Amino acid sequence: RIVGFACPLIAVKLNGFACKNPAWVQANDFSFSGLHNPGNTGNPFGSAITPVTVAQIPGLNTLGISMVRIDYAPWGIVAPHYHPRATEIITVIEGSLEVGFVTSNPDNRLISKTLQKGDVFVFPVGLLHFQRNVGHMNAVTISALSSQNPGVSTIANVIFGSKPDISTNILAKAFQVDKNIVQQIQRKF
Amino acid sequence: RIVGFACPLIAVKLNGFACKNPAWVQANDFSFSGLHNPGNTGNPFGSAITPVTVAQIPGLNTLGISMVRIDYAPWGIVAPHYHPRATEIITVIEGSLEVGFVTSNPDNRLISKTLQKGDVFVFPVGLLHFQRNVGHMNAVTISALSSQNPGVSTIANVIFGSKPDISTNILAKAFQVDKNIVQQIQRKF
Amino acid sequence: RIVGFACPLIAVKLNGFACKNPAWVQANDFSFSGLHNPGNTGNPFGSAITPVTVAQIPGLNTLGISMVRIDYAPWGIVAPHYHPRATEIITVIEGSLEVGFVTSNPDNRLISKTLQKGDVFVFPVGLLHFQRNVGHMNAVTISALSSQNPGVSTIANVIFGSKPDISTNILAKAFQVDKNIVQQIQRKF
Amino acid sequence: RIVGFACPLIAVKLNGFACKNPAWVQANDFSFSGLHNPGNTGNPFGSAITPVTVAQIPGLNTLGISMVRIDYAPWGIVAPHYHPRATEIITVIEGSLEVGFVTSNPDNRLISKTLQKGDVFVFPVGLLHFQRNVGHMNAVTISALSSQNPGVSTIANVIFGSKPDISTNILAKAFQVDKNIVQQIQRKF
Amino acid sequence: RIVGFACPLIAVKLNGFACKNPAWVQANDFSFSGLHNPGNTGNPFGSAITPVTVAQIPGLNTLGISMVRIDYAPWGIVAPHYHPRATEIITVIEGSLEVGFVTSNPDNRLISKTLQKGDVFVFPVGLLHFQRNVGHMNAVTISALSSQNPGVSTIANVIFGSKPDISTNILAKAFQVDKNIVQQIQRKF
Amino acid sequence: RIVGFACPLIAVKLNGFACKNPAWVQANDFSFSGLHNPGNTGNPFGSAITPVTVAQIPGLNTLGISMVRIDYAPWGIVAPHYHPRATEIITVIEGSLEVGFVTSNPDNRLISKTLQKGDVFVFPVGLLHFQRNVGHMNAVTISALSSQNPGVSTIANVIFGSKPDISTNILAKAFQVDKNIVQQIQRKF
Repeated sequence: RIVGFACPLIAVKLNGFACKNPAWVQANDFSFSGLHNPGNTGNPFGSAITPVTVAQIPGLNTLGISMVRIDYAPWGIVAPHYHPRATEIITVIEGSLEVGFVTSNPDNRLISKTLQKGDVFVFPVGLLHFQRNVGHMNAVTISALSSQNPGVSTIANVIFGSKPDISTNILAKAFQVDKNIVQQIQRKF
Repeated sequence: RIVGFACPLIAVKLNGFACKNPAWVQANDFSFSGLHNPGNTGNPFGSAITPVTVAQIPGLNTLGISMVRIDYAPWGIVAPHYHPRATEIITVIEGSLEVGFVTSNPDNRLISKTLQKGDVFVFPVGLLHFQRNVGHMNAVTISALSSQNPGVSTIANVIFGSKPDISTNILAKAFQVDKNIVQQIQRKF
Repeated sequence: RIVGFACPLIAVKLNGFACKNPAWVQANDFSFSGLHNPGNTGNPFGSAITPVTVAQIPGLNTLGISMVRIDYAPWGIVAPHYHPRATEIITVIEGSLEVGFVTSNPDNRLISKTLQKGDVFVFPVGLLHFQRNVGHMNAVTISALSSQNPGVSTIANVIFGSKPDISTNILAKAFQVDKNIVQQIQRKF
Repeated sequence: RIVGFACPLIAVKLNGFACKNPAWVQANDFSFSGLHNPGNTGNPFGSAITPVTVAQIPGLNTLGISMVRIDYAPWGIVAPHYHPRATEIITVIEGSLEVGFVTSNPDNRLISKTLQKGDVFVFPVGLLHFQRNVGHMNAVTISALSSQNPGVSTIANVIFGSKPDISTNILAKAFQVDKNIVQQIQRKF
Repeated sequence: RIVGFACPLIAVKLNGFACKNPAWVQANDFSFSGLHNPGNTGNPFGSAITPVTVAQIPGLNTLGISMVRIDYAPWGIVAPHYHPRATEIITVIEGSLEVGFVTSNPDNRLISKTLQKGDVFVFPVGLLHFQRNVGHMNAVTISALSSQNPGVSTIANVIFGSKPDISTNILAKAFQVDKNIVQQIQRKF
Repeated sequence: RIVGFACPLIAVKLNGFACKNPAWVQANDFSFSGLHNPGNTGNPFGSAITPVTVAQIPGLNTLGISMVRIDYAPWGIVAPHYHPRATEIITVIEGSLEVGFVTSNPDNRLISKTLQKGDVFVFPVGLLHFQRNVGHMNAVTISALSSQNPGVSTIANVIFGSKPDISTNILAKAFQVDKNIVQQIQRKF
């Protein structure tokens, strides 16, 4: 029996998410509510991320796209990070943002821009990028990512906050600083 | 020399769009402005589409994503259409919308829902779908698509508005109506 | 234990079709009989479709190809449709056929040709296409599609025959006709 | 400008085949004539192959499918070969054929069947396979392959007929036969 | 819950290999020991293959790469074979090797070279290739393949050693030799 | 004319590397010499990387694999980095190495192991990883990557050494340290 859309698995799990028989899917399998609600930016980074991936919409499984809302307090940041499996396209709904991405070795060029309301910007797959609210008001962005399960590796977390820690010796050598500076940062994460 | 991101071609065209040497790209190759501006909905469908694909942002080439803003006058529609190469994820910025998609043969199930501000919905790749403003105010949506060049086949246009026309006999038989009804519709497109 | 061919799943279902352990497959898992038998064209379209997809040959799963025989009574048609996941290549075994496909927006060009016995034609993935017997004899074609599960969206069915119906208002606006014409067509499907 | 179908390159060559601007394509770019004509089987193998790949239909480029007609004299064979980049699906138009494919190491199972008119069989991608006419009449098959440029490596040719020859020592050891037997076969190719 | 790496299936099997929940993986799921140990080359080919594929490292599943060590006695060979699903890149750790691959029909060009310690060579996906120790000492190579489950079809085995045998008639005709020569070779495998 | 292997472009550049007509390729297009030569580890990291990618072997283009030799002085490291487009499989030729990778958010688990001669380990695509020589002798590894052009983003370089610098404010907030510590590190890169 030929099925109507691209979900490749019936009655088993794919990426850990259940995959329904297309004959039984309903509108709720393809929808999510609440993306108009501001997130809570009361944290050290001054930002809040509301993802809409396959974890929130099961019907996204295998369809290769997801969405995310981000709120930024004044001067709030989304710390440098990359998505192992997705390109991101972002548009500013409210506010002004500094954004940038850095190319791979050997150039490590920073490609950056200050975005205003209505501006759109692209972060190519796998490249390090960041955002910062450069206005005195809250800012809001809507992004889409080219995977239903894009993954996020936030540099500060994967470098200084892994469980267990990466050896202090390795990080001291990698960043060419004293070990006690590394340990001081590790304690924060 | 190893390049920093995914654009596979240098100095030739891909999909008809120029592909720059990564050593020369600039922020402008990855950005677009104006997505906060309402489109003009003064047309028979009462809707306006502002696409941000590889045609607007050259740096999107090969990156597998694009974005689109749609404005809807009260009761305006985006007529039934499909994207040959992309899944769409849509969120309502303002207003209330009826949306739906139809599965392939043999079931042809209509999966539909009325969306409010902040709701998110998914149209799986290749499936026919549509939107209609069901409120008395203008509505606005932001969508993302899982291709930098998703393509759009609007049914009314490909069926009744192709150049040259599909033979009236074929359409009369396909839709099981009189030829003069087919001709009457063809004249509109 | 390394397996000999491309079926990626053992002992679970993929696309809803069982996937055997390669050590246990037999010739019957890769074969089908009866493609020389004419289908019954006694229906409003005057055509009959005999598919050979993963639904008929389980061993096709994941292999990316399928086949179909179509019979056409004199002046019979295969109504305008598209395959969400496959390109089609068709050859005429008996008879004369008018065939065509329509490109996406904004051009909507009709690329068509009258085919004779031994002619081959291509319908690119996702594009609307149709066939019509233009001879006074039965016609027969063999097609292949670039997916084991290509899907078919027949326009008349997905537009006017979905369950439940797409709202008459939307279709009237999309096709720029009176609602009673839409309802008249909907009743046929 | 957004193009309507999948040919990814304009005005350059892809796989060595020219890629047209979609605005200029014509029906002839998607068609081929003559597949109803028997090929000449007057050769040592008693078979004739009429391919319809991207070399015959330029519009097939990137579309992932091709077709081939094969004629077989009584007891004619298509010698053991494989397609590096495609699965094959075959149907018998006239006659009776013995067909088979062999799985990879370590099992090397022969999966074979005698096909009659109207039978369909599948040769999975990359696996060695062959066909033989086992009737007293000519036989005809139509196959489709899941690539526009599937490639063919005929074992006898790549082993004993390469230019220059593979060293006789290597082949004698590989097949565990005397060098003079290897040389005797090499002279035939 | 979003997982950190690319294994697409949890709690079911993929390609017949178990796929763990990423929350439970351990270093042992990604490691293998013993690639420094010479294999036993006391066999008719004078070579020994130590594979490290998904069969040895479960964590390789879906990651698209594998590794293999090969030992060669003086004049030992790896008999002509191909990988249905992978390109191979090889480097010589010890010794001197003659290597080559043969292109598809119609050219069947042999591209070959004698490699010394530290040389690297590439066998493109699906093409027939072979290696031979041309020194008086043991040789050792390390290869990597672009699939976690590349498959191997050794020509002598799939042609003359399949279970059951390919018909002697077909092979005699394919190689243009007497049937008794074919049978003589078949008995060896 | 049908070509024998997978290089998709003739006479233009792909990824910035020339792509030859297959009829003209030679063994040198598929080979590289010198991987047995130790690299110079006299640098702050105590390691040296000798890559063999499409930049060194043009014939690798589109074939999806590459190789790299790494030399490590005692206690030398390969600083934390990731490959945006490739999984890595590594084997130890000489010495003892501590290796590890860190999973994405939210777990950020460090999966690590001390490898001895002959051990093999896998770094999944896109995940941060590192190596350190934990012996008192030089160490040597051979790795393969699942792309002909895998890319490398070394964290210290993309974070603290981009051109121009990422704003000190952003980094201070991301790592929760004083701006002068950030500036001190930036000066090193």
